[in-house]
Amino acid sequence: MSRLRVAIVGGSGYTGGELIRLLLFHPHVELTQIASGSRAGHYVHSVHPNLRKVTALRFCHPNDLTTCDIVFLCLPHGASAGEIERYQALAPRVIDLSADFRLRSPELYERWYGAAHRAPELLNQAIYGLPELHRRELAEANLVSGTGCMATAAILGLAPLYRAGLVNRAIPLVVEAKVGSSAAGATPGASSHHPERSGAVRSFQPTGHRHSAELIQELGELSGGEIAQPVAFSATAIELVRGILITAHVFVNEPLEERRLWRVYREAYQQEPFVRIVKERNGVYRYPEPKILVGSNYCDVGFEYDAEQQRVVVMAALDNLMKGAAGNAVQALNCMFGWDEVTGLSFPGLHPV
Amino acid sequence: MSRLRVAIVGGSGYTGGELIRLLLFHPHVELTQIASGSRAGHYVHSVHPNLRKVTALRFCHPNDLTTCDIVFLCLPHGASAGEIERYQALAPRVIDLSADFRLRSPELYERWYGAAHRAPELLNQAIYGLPELHRRELAEANLVSGTGCMATAAILGLAPLYRAGLVNRAIPLVVEAKVGSSAAGATPGASSHHPERSGAVRSFQPTGHRHSAELIQELGELSGGEIAQPVAFSATAIELVRGILITAHVFVNEPLEERRLWRVYREAYQQEPFVRIVKERNGVYRYPEPKILVGSNYCDVGFEYDAEQQRVVVMAALDNLMKGAAGNAVQALNCMFGWDEVTGLSFPGLHPV
Amino acid sequence: MSRLRVAIVGGSGYTGGELIRLLLFHPHVELTQIASGSRAGHYVHSVHPNLRKVTALRFCHPNDLTTCDIVFLCLPHGASAGEIERYQALAPRVIDLSADFRLRSPELYERWYGAAHRAPELLNQAIYGLPELHRRELAEANLVSGTGCMATAAILGLAPLYRAGLVNRAIPLVVEAKVGSSAAGATPGASSHHPERSGAVRSFQPTGHRHSAELIQELGELSGGEIAQPVAFSATAIELVRGILITAHVFVNEPLEERRLWRVYREAYQQEPFVRIVKERNGVYRYPEPKILVGSNYCDVGFEYDAEQQRVVVMAALDNLMKGAAGNAVQALNCMFGWDEVTGLSFPGLHPV
Amino acid sequence: MSRLRVAIVGGSGYTGGELIRLLLFHPHVELTQIASGSRAGHYVHSVHPNLRKVTALRFCHPNDLTTCDIVFLCLPHGASAGEIERYQALAPRVIDLSADFRLRSPELYERWYGAAHRAPELLNQAIYGLPELHRRELAEANLVSGTGCMATAAILGLAPLYRAGLVNRAIPLVVEAKVGSSAAGATPGASSHHPERSGAVRSFQPTGHRHSAELIQELGELSGGEIAQPVAFSATAIELVRGILITAHVFVNEPLEERRLWRVYREAYQQEPFVRIVKERNGVYRYPEPKILVGSNYCDVGFEYDAEQQRVVVMAALDNLMKGAAGNAVQALNCMFGWDEVTGLSFPGLHPV
Repeated sequence: MSRLRVAIVGGSGYTGGELIRLLLFHPHVELTQIASGSRAGHYVHSVHPNLRKVTALRFCHPNDLTTCDIVFLCLPHGASAGEIERYQALAPRVIDLSADFRLRSPELYERWYGAAHRAPELLNQAIYGLPELHRRELAEANLVSGTGCMATAAILGLAPLYRAGLVNRAIPLVVEAKVGSSAAGATPGASSHHPERSGAVRSFQPTGHRHSAELIQELGELSGGEIAQPVAFSATAIELVRGILITAHVFVNEPLEERRLWRVYREAYQQEPFVRIVKERNGVYRYPEPKILVGSNYCDVGFEYDAEQQRVVVMAALDNLMKGAAGNAVQALNCMFGWDEVTGLSFPGLHPV
Repeated sequence: MSRLRVAIVGGSGYTGGELIRLLLFHPHVELTQIASGSRAGHYVHSVHPNLRKVTALRFCHPNDLTTCDIVFLCLPHGASAGEIERYQALAPRVIDLSADFRLRSPELYERWYGAAHRAPELLNQAIYGLPELHRRELAEANLVSGTGCMATAAILGLAPLYRAGLVNRAIPLVVEAKVGSSAAGATPGASSHHPERSGAVRSFQPTGHRHSAELIQELGELSGGEIAQPVAFSATAIELVRGILITAHVFVNEPLEERRLWRVYREAYQQEPFVRIVKERNGVYRYPEPKILVGSNYCDVGFEYDAEQQRVVVMAALDNLMKGAAGNAVQALNCMFGWDEVTGLSFPGLHPV
Repeated sequence: MSRLRVAIVGGSGYTGGELIRLLLFHPHVELTQIASGSRAGHYVHSVHPNLRKVTALRFCHPNDLTTCDIVFLCLPHGASAGEIERYQALAPRVIDLSADFRLRSPELYERWYGAAHRAPELLNQAIYGLPELHRRELAEANLVSGTGCMATAAILGLAPLYRAGLVNRAIPLVVEAKVGSSAAGATPGASSHHPERSGAVRSFQPTGHRHSAELIQELGELSGGEIAQPVAFSATAIELVRGILITAHVFVNEPLEERRLWRVYREAYQQEPFVRIVKERNGVYRYPEPKILVGSNYCDVGFEYDAEQQRVVVMAALDNLMKGAAGNAVQALNCMFGWDEVTGLSFPGLHPV
Repeated sequence: MSRLRVAIVGGSGYTGGELIRLLLFHPHVELTQIASGSRAGHYVHSVHPNLRKVTALRFCHPNDLTTCDIVFLCLPHGASAGEIERYQALAPRVIDLSADFRLRSPELYERWYGAAHRAPELLNQAIYGLPELHRRELAEANLVSGTGCMATAAILGLAPLYRAGLVNRAIPLVVEAKVGSSAAGATPGASSHHPERSGAVRSFQPTGHRHSAELIQELGELSGGEIAQPVAFSATAIELVRGILITAHVFVNEPLEERRLWRVYREAYQQEPFVRIVKERNGVYRYPEPKILVGSNYCDVGFEYDAEQQRVVVMAALDNLMKGAAGNAVQALNCMFGWDEVTGLSFPGLHPV
């Protein structure tokens, strides 16, 4: 089989770099063009030093891109939608890792992102690229959206409970995300200056985080259309480069036994190649932890049940640049072309690290 | 004024070490005895290397303690109550930094700590040593209890809302604590081994954390006896040695304006020497953050209001060994003797760090 | 081609875990037995949590090992030599990752390790398993020794200068190693307790480090038998889990131009798959840095020349568990069997991380 | 005694912030003016968040400074010398924390800093502000220079050996410095962006570091005028915000016994309030370590002797913003005015941290 030709637009950021790394080793594609407005002409390894001696590719200018089979967009929010026609003209399949095509409703987009969507007619063609929920639609899709890194963890952690109808939706859902510095991107600034950012435990979005919208959309769909409960989502930046842990508090409709929860999660994830249930009585790693997921495409999910309060605490961990961005996009790519879903994504993570 | 003679029991742990540091520089006391079962005979600086050339004291054996004016107990939970008579015979005032005398109800103690209390008759003499709530009682107290580090942050963060009667107690209270490694104490183990603990984002108590009990007791008292709502308290260990940030989600009774919250918090804390309200529109440090509190006795408190959900997100940060343990105990000591409350506690914390 | 059957002895440590991870994905071998005295019967993922859902293997007891094609020994220093006959009876090829077979001279061994060698007759059969220096001998070897992690970095950094005869051996060689916590192994202790180890810059072996012996042996051999100058090797533990950077100060015989050094290093490493020369005028990553090597088998080497002092500063970085241990051992394995040297070692490292 | 009025110029940087913190608690001075070109009008705590509720001062504009008793300059290198007359007109005593007045020779300045000095006539009036070497001259000084942070550690570590005439100056001196991110200042940039800087072990100045010049000047003076040996100084940035450890390799003239070294160091530092000798056989903190010095003014010094090579490995640690900058400047201030040298500098550092 000849390899498909792939281009990346926005290759000098962190998500772009991770995508380059993955696609260079993907057996079914050939990465032929990597565009960067700011770094055109420079070697890829001058920006992504891990790729020295791995690739001799240089960044090209976005205006110099030529047609190919697939285009990945790793652009700032807003930039993809603004030029989506141009990118769709470059290749029949587009995977956009920005937030532009995550929400199906132009109204919701405007509400959360504070501006009218620039290509609203495409919103219901775009597939929310989470294979665990939309595997079948991905097989037919020409426009696929990447998923929000914190939203991905929260959705995968909570989906089994919502799908099983266990959640008491009269009580708000609280999701607290802990997140590393790479999630804020590659552009230096005062709050990412090492002496200020190191050791931080910094609430950066206690209310109104945009990833709430994805959560509400996807969990709502699993619940028959609407989640119908307040979603309290807060995010705290911690000392970590890669990784997210979300902790969610969900109240259930009726008293449960823990084995019921085990069954619900096992049914949801037993066959999933990239979701693991982590819940141990002993040992150091009893619950999901992002540390051991660095570089891997896993989302680890765990839970604990508080019988007295009829409350489930759900934890979900992932590497924000992998299952939260580039890795998940490659998994979606594999779905789009009917390849084995784990192709190019076998790195299992390290221990210790 | 002659200095009061102070003894510390359990001086080789982290709370003990911090207390030694503070008391060596406290102008009204003389630290004359520091007991440690395991380190008797060794120089204090062999365990607490920051105190080299600061003190030439050695640890004595607990059995060799002689009478003095005040005894601080820095013992493992359970050990204080078991021998409290002996310690009360050593000095007329005892400040116990373990959890043994935090709860006023023997039933609650047994429920949360899983064993009958060994000196239940003393529970209602013991004062919960949080000056911000119990300043007056401390002035009369002979037995004072230290406070739980996470509970202290949560109580100080939430007290103004409960006291003002703003909280919708039909909805559960969710408190998520992020905490550094020193809170787990000085004893090495598999989960504190650096390659395993470094970079961790580790849920260690998703349900049933004992500090919930203090929270329920103290917020309940402010609410007229009972908090009357489920308290969902979860704790996550993160990459940090010292420091705690709690993030709490509280739903309020009625629509508010933000300035109402400002007023409630200002009234509560304007006069407090060790509580600061941190809530800025701009800058790197917009909300409370434990990083800049290392070594200081401050508890920084902030909040954000979500009008749509009638939800307040409360953040509170402190240094678990200072305002969460030894510093708070010294502040309580100052209250007990009518000294200026900030005596010996003026170190403001560092920036950057 | 049928896969060779491999056993690992001592699979619960960090080097063992890394070797398991690599061999599970190696296309020419089948990892059939993983022995651990302390964890026999437990799932491998209970110790190495990154391998959950990756392997269902359990640890066996060392006494239950059966014959196979290759045995890797990941045992404490001294333990391999003591039972080497037993392990050689298990398989025709043995790769020992301890220090037992690194030195060719029993006298040197005794001097540096403080005890007589327990299998001195094997010392000159054992090959020092650094492919960059001993590729040809590895092709014939039945007993291969792993290399010291710091020694590997120092030798690869310095070999080109010694081989080229540039070094002024009248002046001592100074090598300063900075090293992460995983190099000290998986056993918890007071100095690895997170609150003590975090943020440490800790001289742990300012003089007399055993890795000096390997350095002297290997650089000596490249210099015609003897290095003939004092080697001042010091090691400092820093805040890092994986990774080593060595900085070496070498004085040269005669004034050089920098391009001479470039030529010497290029000739040495141009064809090497796992050594990269890193020396840039601009950018963040101008010299070798272990951070971007985590999980990879690269050793990055750089240099700077001080014309006034006729001094070369050499920097070399690697991941101590990879090129400093397990990765290098797999590379040696590939040499032993004539496989492509990069087989199973293609992971390039991450950025950022 | 009325307090002296002090002004700080350049108060928004890290050294400026640390100086503010110290001077606010210094009993003999009143900090009346803090100038910052970029932050004029803003509260000090908006830049240095640790000082919230500690001071209500605002930054003034440098042009608005009025006369006072002492001026501290915390300006970029070059800026102090360029306007030194103006600052000397503001106050009779000036302490300049930049590098402008560290070297006594205009030729050396030009060689190391690459530009002619702008006030060469003042160079031999300026006192190198290291109290341990220049205490008496400070008592008479009107212009005092701060000291380089790495140079301070190296000089204090090595001075006893040079003063005692023990050093074999036929062999180069090698000094390797490990340093935290705050030493690079408060201005964000690509290399200080947290995802890039976190976990770094980054050689940033393998040759030609300017602090060498101070080292050569000061050790030379102790040696009777000239150090007369090559000084190989290299610096590596590591994961740390505050702190420096230098490791120096010195060869001595003749075989020594370790107790000779003990005597030399004890004589040098026994009476020094801020230098401690750290050299233990056991325990976690056997040698100097910057971690426990955070916020303190100590320089900890240790050594190890390699009898075979007649080599001394010297280690010295300090907090670069304290003994390496602001703390040392306050100590120098105390010397200038004949106050107890430890005034305002009693914070001992924390454990753990």
